[in-house]
Amino acid sequence: MKKYKILLIIADGLGDRQVKSLGNKTPLEVADKPNIKELLKSSLVGLMDPIGPGIVAGSDTSHMAIFGVDPHRYYRGRGALEALGTGAYLTEGDIAFRGNFATVDENMNVIDRRAGRKIDEGEQLVNELNQKIGEIDGVKVTFYKATEHRVAVVLSGKDLSDKISDTDPHEVGRKIKESIPLDNSISARRTAEIVNNLTKRIYDVLSTSIYNKNRIERGEPPANIILLRGASKFVELPKLYNYTGLKGGAVSATALIKGVCKAIGMDVFTPKGATGGIDTNYDAKADKVIELFKDDKYDFVFLHIKATDAASHDGKAEEKVKAIEKIDYIIGKILNNVGREIVIMFTGDHATPVELKEHSGDPVPVLLYVPDNIIPDNVSDFNEREARKGSLKIIGLDVMNLLLNYSNRATKYGA
Amino acid sequence: MKKYKILLIIADGLGDRQVKSLGNKTPLEVADKPNIKELLKSSLVGLMDPIGPGIVAGSDTSHMAIFGVDPHRYYRGRGALEALGTGAYLTEGDIAFRGNFATVDENMNVIDRRAGRKIDEGEQLVNELNQKIGEIDGVKVTFYKATEHRVAVVLSGKDLSDKISDTDPHEVGRKIKESIPLDNSISARRTAEIVNNLTKRIYDVLSTSIYNKNRIERGEPPANIILLRGASKFVELPKLYNYTGLKGGAVSATALIKGVCKAIGMDVFTPKGATGGIDTNYDAKADKVIELFKDDKYDFVFLHIKATDAASHDGKAEEKVKAIEKIDYIIGKILNNVGREIVIMFTGDHATPVELKEHSGDPVPVLLYVPDNIIPDNVSDFNEREARKGSLKIIGLDVMNLLLNYSNRATKYGA
Repeated sequence: MKKYKILLIIADGLGDRQVKSLGNKTPLEVADKPNIKELLKSSLVGLMDPIGPGIVAGSDTSHMAIFGVDPHRYYRGRGALEALGTGAYLTEGDIAFRGNFATVDENMNVIDRRAGRKIDEGEQLVNELNQKIGEIDGVKVTFYKATEHRVAVVLSGKDLSDKISDTDPHEVGRKIKESIPLDNSISARRTAEIVNNLTKRIYDVLSTSIYNKNRIERGEPPANIILLRGASKFVELPKLYNYTGLKGGAVSATALIKGVCKAIGMDVFTPKGATGGIDTNYDAKADKVIELFKDDKYDFVFLHIKATDAASHDGKAEEKVKAIEKIDYIIGKILNNVGREIVIMFTGDHATPVELKEHSGDPVPVLLYVPDNIIPDNVSDFNEREARKGSLKIIGLDVMNLLLNYSNRATKYGA
Repeated sequence: MKKYKILLIIADGLGDRQVKSLGNKTPLEVADKPNIKELLKSSLVGLMDPIGPGIVAGSDTSHMAIFGVDPHRYYRGRGALEALGTGAYLTEGDIAFRGNFATVDENMNVIDRRAGRKIDEGEQLVNELNQKIGEIDGVKVTFYKATEHRVAVVLSGKDLSDKISDTDPHEVGRKIKESIPLDNSISARRTAEIVNNLTKRIYDVLSTSIYNKNRIERGEPPANIILLRGASKFVELPKLYNYTGLKGGAVSATALIKGVCKAIGMDVFTPKGATGGIDTNYDAKADKVIELFKDDKYDFVFLHIKATDAASHDGKAEEKVKAIEKIDYIIGKILNNVGREIVIMFTGDHATPVELKEHSGDPVPVLLYVPDNIIPDNVSDFNEREARKGSLKIIGLDVMNLLLNYSNRATKYGA
């Protein structure tokens, strides 16, 4: 039996409903997809509930499930995964926060939750914080710059807890919040205290920083505080190679997804021009996938496209159609360069119907192309409507088992 | 409500993919199946994942699941089940091995892993071993003859472990291996030591046996050692009668399957001429099923046919087609003799696509004939392609519940 390499493409928020502005069709129905249609000749098709029927999945929990890691057992919040994806180095028990550079007045009232969003001095401010703070109450503190106004903040030490509340008031005009323990443990009380002390130290450092003086001089809001939210303890995840035997490479520009991939031990690549938005450089992503396929190091390549979800959240049906057509273009380019002797799954991590502008718990269409002589599902197109006629009716946790089976890489359970 | 008797027919490795030599049809599609087609008029049809989507099932784990015993909870390896099927008497905690009569030189290097395969004196050699060894280090040792060169070896005593390695080097020309403990437990260390002492004793007995002297004189390789593999602890399984109320009789010629049936308390029958191969006596099997149906002792009759899997592993599509046609013939014969007032399920325990020659994780078609006035699925034939159009989409663990329901034997869950 020939062992095939595997390509998994996840278009974030792919699933949709009938869209009025598209003549009651879904973006997948409207999009021109010649390469995907070609794959249908040797594909199984159907619907996937990333977590379970009706459950509205986040991108993190869904990707974990699709990669075969049960989120009900391992998920501990977004913070640690996003910090990982931002470049943080985490060890078991670390507490990670998502943070915003923000602007407060001298009474600690929030004036701008994003300090103008565009912060050219982010790198310098993060370096200054790391140099001047370093440690609070015996706990190591590390700051990592993310996109725009975003930062990740990591506490490393013993007996820390993620059962503490945000300092982010989530509203302009309100005072920054005290972090309070959310259970009665000593570790939660201690961690909340550390976070409150840390917030004061951050204000001391940032409000006196030369970079913020420059910002004020230029008429920009000073990035004089970091609002913290989503405390999350880092729990080591099972490693993809250990539970599947697959050596995986991931191509993504989205910190949260990169974090999930890193957490299961995949090598992660963000090619130049890949933005995680609708303006992403599709060719750069396709080229990186092709490069990974030609590298003997990888037998499983994962490609994440965020543009579909971004368009959905903005309610832009036409943009979503275009993003899907670009994914079809990518698939064509990969096939032309890598050939058809690979197993391909194309699906979404959840539905984000453009008319809802939010994630929904609708099932997501899934396509599984197999070069071997399988019985194809013979549907006329790949979309939400036709997928109901296919033979696949799966959950996210089934995906890796299906990919291992159809690439002839599964190990037999029993004799 | 009339309670029907139940017939469950499992064709081993039944599921398949499109086969080029069959004009891109599956063996089930090509096979002429007049009796099965007749059943379709009052049948539900669909697909079954024996364990779960994409999971490549063994015959043992799959049969356990189909009989309603969760393998994830109860499966402890093939050895104990196969020993049971070979005729071994096992109690909880016993350690069973699969063994080969083999030929070693005086330095214990393996010359023939099967001692020529054809061993006419197998029965006598096993008797000699049982008489002369009996016990090692306070642990009872029992040998059971299986087919050809195969034996089952059982250790009975307290605090034994199956976490030990094989003595079988799995290769000719290599020295027989020391069994080593696979964990740090005292029981594993002790069991490995017993197995190594046992191996020496086996050699002492067999190398001086008159039967082997005769073999050497006839120019045959002496069966002077037993290579042991697949240590497995016997765990009592739930009994079919206790969890379903069904009194079951099984017709099979395959040791592993017979073992599963015995382990759940079924009476097991191997009619003369039933071989577990493609040369099996189908009439003898049909006759035994008919006999069991006419016996008031049984309300659940299980028929296992190995020929489909044997043909698949050999890559012989035409043989598989013939085996399926023989199963159709068996069904006709049973219906003619028993009548149509029975519930019948016909399915496979896993797919073994003839072009792959190995088990795969593809779903298996399932047919459920019900004499009551159910709404039939109205598919045109019973095969992998048509089964996708049916209403059943089940896993192995659903089977007994479905059979109990449609035979009007289920007990209500709740009020």
